[in-house]
Amino acid sequence: MTSLQDLDTPAALVDTARMQRNIARMQERMDALGVRFRPHVKTTKCLPVAQAQIAAGARGITVSTLKEAERFFDAGVRDILYAVGMAPARLPQALALRRRGCDLKIITDSAAGARAIAEFGRAQGEAFEVWIEIDVDGHRSGIPPEGEALLEVARVLVQGGMCLGGVIAHAGSSYDHDTPEALRRIAEQERAGTVRAAGRLRDAGLPCPVVSVGSTPTALAAATLEGVTEVRAGVYVFFDLVMHNVGVCGTGDIALSVLTTVIGHQEEKGWAIVDAGWMAMSRDRGTQKQKRDYGFGQVCTEGGEVLPGFLLSGANQEHGIVSGTDGACADIAQRFPIGTRLRVLPNHACATGAQHPVYYAIGPGGQAEAWPRFQGW
Amino acid sequence: MTSLQDLDTPAALVDTARMQRNIARMQERMDALGVRFRPHVKTTKCLPVAQAQIAAGARGITVSTLKEAERFFDAGVRDILYAVGMAPARLPQALALRRRGCDLKIITDSAAGARAIAEFGRAQGEAFEVWIEIDVDGHRSGIPPEGEALLEVARVLVQGGMCLGGVIAHAGSSYDHDTPEALRRIAEQERAGTVRAAGRLRDAGLPCPVVSVGSTPTALAAATLEGVTEVRAGVYVFFDLVMHNVGVCGTGDIALSVLTTVIGHQEEKGWAIVDAGWMAMSRDRGTQKQKRDYGFGQVCTEGGEVLPGFLLSGANQEHGIVSGTDGACADIAQRFPIGTRLRVLPNHACATGAQHPVYYAIGPGGQAEAWPRFQGW
Repeated sequence: MTSLQDLDTPAALVDTARMQRNIARMQERMDALGVRFRPHVKTTKCLPVAQAQIAAGARGITVSTLKEAERFFDAGVRDILYAVGMAPARLPQALALRRRGCDLKIITDSAAGARAIAEFGRAQGEAFEVWIEIDVDGHRSGIPPEGEALLEVARVLVQGGMCLGGVIAHAGSSYDHDTPEALRRIAEQERAGTVRAAGRLRDAGLPCPVVSVGSTPTALAAATLEGVTEVRAGVYVFFDLVMHNVGVCGTGDIALSVLTTVIGHQEEKGWAIVDAGWMAMSRDRGTQKQKRDYGFGQVCTEGGEVLPGFLLSGANQEHGIVSGTDGACADIAQRFPIGTRLRVLPNHACATGAQHPVYYAIGPGGQAEAWPRFQGW
Repeated sequence: MTSLQDLDTPAALVDTARMQRNIARMQERMDALGVRFRPHVKTTKCLPVAQAQIAAGARGITVSTLKEAERFFDAGVRDILYAVGMAPARLPQALALRRRGCDLKIITDSAAGARAIAEFGRAQGEAFEVWIEIDVDGHRSGIPPEGEALLEVARVLVQGGMCLGGVIAHAGSSYDHDTPEALRRIAEQERAGTVRAAGRLRDAGLPCPVVSVGSTPTALAAATLEGVTEVRAGVYVFFDLVMHNVGVCGTGDIALSVLTTVIGHQEEKGWAIVDAGWMAMSRDRGTQKQKRDYGFGQVCTEGGEVLPGFLLSGANQEHGIVSGTDGACADIAQRFPIGTRLRVLPNHACATGAQHPVYYAIGPGGQAEAWPRFQGW
């Protein structure tokens, strides 16, 4: 059996014990709050991870591309939410999935989008299940909970013969906060806005069975989820340094890391050069504007122990620079000789994972199992 | 035959006419300067692109991983420089390539690295061809042209029975400049430092047949390449917005773009939401600190005409935000209705390409040919 020591570098490692703990923590919280949990598989695009989430109690999955929907449906997952606004040109692909038996839900946030779905659906004799995207924090897409647009979109769908399945929101701005109070506030804002939109639809005599909210920070911070029927979150399964700065995990919860090898030094500068550059870490600098900037990642031993003060401070395509945060490290070449293997915790698990065709799942005894992930659209 | 109009989005497009023009421009320049040209295939990891470079006159290729070396050797390219400091653990993989007939050259920049190569080579009866990496601008790896370290590394290699093939430098700091004068200055610094290192080796009675320099900006800016035998460059084949800011190409030379579809709007904010997020563009924000910040990319029509003032100003995983640089665009939903297809020029062609399993090569008539590229190590 392959072990950690056999792996070539750079390699993306998943600490399976941490991953299982993260999955259990979220699922237990959702169970206690009385809501269904629908993990977002865009973080990992990896079947064994989704299977672990489902085994722990997840009900269906969220995807960011129809390729993800196709891959996970082929692997046996039937209840799938495609949580990116439906492009009319992709309706035939969505139809094909539904005709094969996939319980695919799609979303829209405009009357124009709703009309395109309804026209295509009627022409094909398909009542698509559509959820309406609600904007709860102004960060990206969605219709405000108040105002006429919400009711107009709903009526276009219902009168067009589509199945109005619910409302969905994502408080992406939760990533910008870093105190428990602020996170509870944005979680309540997400909940209240989405529940309000659902209430307005029902008051107008329109159906709204599902009220779906979520992001990792709000899912972990919400004090109540009254009126919500399901929660979505993605990055919680691995966590990362951005989430650590947000305040929802410790570095000891981060299940994804990149294994790397020291290939050289610039001793006067206190640098060790490693073979994990941005191709292995991604160009994500998500901690740059947070309370603590981790450069391109936090350096750990090969076994995963954090090495305080050592960051991946620079990254070219296949070169990374390890340096001490408190200035030059005089004995860098003695401390990390050529050939030394290190791990680096990433800023953003979704972005770092996307750089790798495979994760290596590392079990408690150091055994390594290849878990493929897929790329592209 | 597939055409541009048939492609699903997001998709990475290569304008083959621009690519061929970029290839010809560089090759003609190298021919005029009297040096060999060895393109860096890390930018594209795509066989048809490398074949076009070789057909135009390139002599061998540069790679950033041994996987690239294996893939291109399997496709018939024999003369390969692996231009990342050799990790001792990867020597068996390099040996296997050489035993299969690959003319693989490896590099080192330390006595420790040189000793590891020589010991392994002697034990295996293999005289590896090794080039010594020279530091000409302090930006990353390499040995200074002056000082004892250079001669020590060379002697370890030669006395260890290895083949000292030459010296190699990369003035990566050229990316930080943006005037013709500054670029000529850094090009001359790269040339002079590397030639000086070669001279010192020869003065000490050591061989140094190859003097290899290069980066796209210095290759295009160098006034003379006296003493240099070969030049390397990668991103010139596609160019990008970072290179445009550096001043070595126009936007009309950028051969890589990402095709995207409008999926929604936030009209009050002047936003069109598109399906090219950072998964399609990469998280590279390389123009952020340059003279003009292009956000996540410059927006163009589907046909490739630049739309002045429209940038991809924000990006989540599968969502991008198109907005006007001069504040809100009042008629964004009329200007770019749902379903509108746009192209986005990338900040950094190497990083954007890496997000895609395939390029679509777009010919002059709009025909689209799939050109696979590979991922991973």
